[in-house]
Amino acid sequence: MTMPTLEDAQALDRADPLAAFRQRFSLPENVIYLDGNSLGPLPVETPRRVAEAVAKEWGDGLVTSWNDAGWVDAPHRIGDKIARVIGARPGEVVVTDSTSVNLYKLIMAAAPLSPGRTEILTERGNFPSDLYVAEGAARTLGLELRVVDRDDLVGAMSSATALVMLTQVDYRSGYRHDIAAMNRIAAGHDVRIVWDLSHSIGTVPLDLGRDGVELAIGCGYKHLNGGPGAPAFLYVAKALQDKITSPISGWFGHASPFVFDARYQPAPGISRFLAGTPPILSMVALEAGVDLMLEVDQNALFAKSAQLFDLFALLVAARCPELRPVSPDDPATRGGHISFAHDHAYEIIQALIARGVIGDFRTPDVARFGITPLYTRFEDIWRAVDILDDIMARKIWQEPQYAVRRVVT
Amino acid sequence: MTMPTLEDAQALDRADPLAAFRQRFSLPENVIYLDGNSLGPLPVETPRRVAEAVAKEWGDGLVTSWNDAGWVDAPHRIGDKIARVIGARPGEVVVTDSTSVNLYKLIMAAAPLSPGRTEILTERGNFPSDLYVAEGAARTLGLELRVVDRDDLVGAMSSATALVMLTQVDYRSGYRHDIAAMNRIAAGHDVRIVWDLSHSIGTVPLDLGRDGVELAIGCGYKHLNGGPGAPAFLYVAKALQDKITSPISGWFGHASPFVFDARYQPAPGISRFLAGTPPILSMVALEAGVDLMLEVDQNALFAKSAQLFDLFALLVAARCPELRPVSPDDPATRGGHISFAHDHAYEIIQALIARGVIGDFRTPDVARFGITPLYTRFEDIWRAVDILDDIMARKIWQEPQYAVRRVVT
Repeated sequence: MTMPTLEDAQALDRADPLAAFRQRFSLPENVIYLDGNSLGPLPVETPRRVAEAVAKEWGDGLVTSWNDAGWVDAPHRIGDKIARVIGARPGEVVVTDSTSVNLYKLIMAAAPLSPGRTEILTERGNFPSDLYVAEGAARTLGLELRVVDRDDLVGAMSSATALVMLTQVDYRSGYRHDIAAMNRIAAGHDVRIVWDLSHSIGTVPLDLGRDGVELAIGCGYKHLNGGPGAPAFLYVAKALQDKITSPISGWFGHASPFVFDARYQPAPGISRFLAGTPPILSMVALEAGVDLMLEVDQNALFAKSAQLFDLFALLVAARCPELRPVSPDDPATRGGHISFAHDHAYEIIQALIARGVIGDFRTPDVARFGITPLYTRFEDIWRAVDILDDIMARKIWQEPQYAVRRVVT
Repeated sequence: MTMPTLEDAQALDRADPLAAFRQRFSLPENVIYLDGNSLGPLPVETPRRVAEAVAKEWGDGLVTSWNDAGWVDAPHRIGDKIARVIGARPGEVVVTDSTSVNLYKLIMAAAPLSPGRTEILTERGNFPSDLYVAEGAARTLGLELRVVDRDDLVGAMSSATALVMLTQVDYRSGYRHDIAAMNRIAAGHDVRIVWDLSHSIGTVPLDLGRDGVELAIGCGYKHLNGGPGAPAFLYVAKALQDKITSPISGWFGHASPFVFDARYQPAPGISRFLAGTPPILSMVALEAGVDLMLEVDQNALFAKSAQLFDLFALLVAARCPELRPVSPDDPATRGGHISFAHDHAYEIIQALIARGVIGDFRTPDVARFGITPLYTRFEDIWRAVDILDDIMARKIWQEPQYAVRRVVT
């Protein structure tokens, strides 16, 4: 195979059916942004909608906007939109709280469905924050958190397993679980899986109904482009909704929140997983990102993601062979980012950022690059690897300023 | 006493040392807003700061703003500002999640400090949402939630009490607990009180350190004017911080969140009560409201609140005697709102809203009016009661449109 040139990459961009979506984002000049799986960029439409929510809905409408601007419905309205992206039904998704809080709710709610069992099972490579939340929830429930390597997951499921907690797309390697297959295996042990879809939604085609997903959470600020710390989503399949209740029984999850009963009565359906008053300004920004995502065919999106990934992998293999590929080759087993291992991945990422290529570092030695096909061009991939090649060839990453540790890596 | 005239009220406004603060809010024309204890109005400064966070920090800075725009420090930075408003020390307050989630955390964390005890004690008139959250937490902890009338609270504390949960200012009547006195009584039973300060902060002078408060939560969207659903705050006194841990052990509460350890290690100090990624856009709006509150002397604020209240009470007693006062007479035992009971309080409030006077209804029969001295004029009180008088005298509230129930009351 001949090595793709910049002109080849530009030709791919001209043929790209999704190319126009790039104009829908406010991307800074002279930046190649390959970190949309950490924080998605700003949609062009978002500032106007947030400003309107601030000045008109809050400023002019004041408290009446809970009714008149639809604030009170926002968790369900945005949830139903997300449901369309992930193959869920209306009334199966709400937007609320953070992924951590939502994961806690689902573990606490669902583990008691399997009384007498002793373990929550997860994999070592899961999001550290998910492991932390599960550790705390397991302690409260009097269960053990059993953490195993991915290859040992299937063998570890047993009649002792109360709940399995998995992130579909590995935040480091990009490895993607086959949701349907894992759910079938779990069902064989009469156990449920809570899926974290934070690195899946908006990049990998999802069909939770088809794939038998019963419980899931996910992030609003990565591929949904909902803004920094955007509220998260929570999914419970219809059949399960009235069998479980949230440990955090706040008024937004009450059957009649404004009747001000003294006793908690969980709302029917997914509403019971709401807790307190939702942060409306952050919700409004998230909704703009979700609306944009609804315009896109998720299969077309992933097809472009796979093409971008393959170009990236091919160029790095040829030009920067000292970076060891850690992401799966097969598009069916990977998500929306590509990662490479190197002992000095931290410094390499800092040197890239200084040259306008924003990726990120993940301990201990991973350089990670988000492939976000809504706004990433083939040309961007080519130029990013060209800069990476220069940084490696001239050992620019050895300059001392790139070793300085920052708070957020 | 002669009845105060509109001219008398205007004279009070001219003499008001806080009068200039009204210009710092974007209040709609032809509205008398007496619902700042439900949702505070928009500070003039807030739209600019939110717009900057959206366009510059998110749009241009992208993921680097976690460091460069101080996003990662926002929970502590805003928490330390709130600490100055409530007489807490730096490092005793964080801004995070909702009041419901924070209340859940503190109950779950603090009740186990009293092993062998069987009850969480609270009062019947507490926020319904707080009762719901406590009900759920008590169930998880295997404790009973004991709900008594306010007058029976002191007698109900015993060696069976694991934790007391109180809201300082009653959301209906405005009755205000004496925090220091209640803490002393609780300490006599070797039990702690979790205080909900949602209706206190920004209207009633607070000194948590002086008054021996160990655990508290409160709301950002009422008198702090932080915007709809603004994140809440959580306070734990220094001495207690390292003795308790959050049940929701998310990465923002980890000792080293970006090292991505596999095991949870709670951060030292107040940080351990953070959970997931904070909703930055809502945090930015809250910070603008808090910054404004920091300019105001809290004693001067309450002194004006008491004057506004007395004018309201006097005018209603004289002109609308069919409205039964339910708020305490003594300023030392009341908060920042005034309430009246009437069998048709709902319809009366709807008729007032139609005339531009925004108060709110609380079941079963309470018309509630926020006294928010930062932007409420004596003239506003006079005019509000004048309109109320007209609605009562001509029985305008009997018009059928005012009986229509709305989602949020």
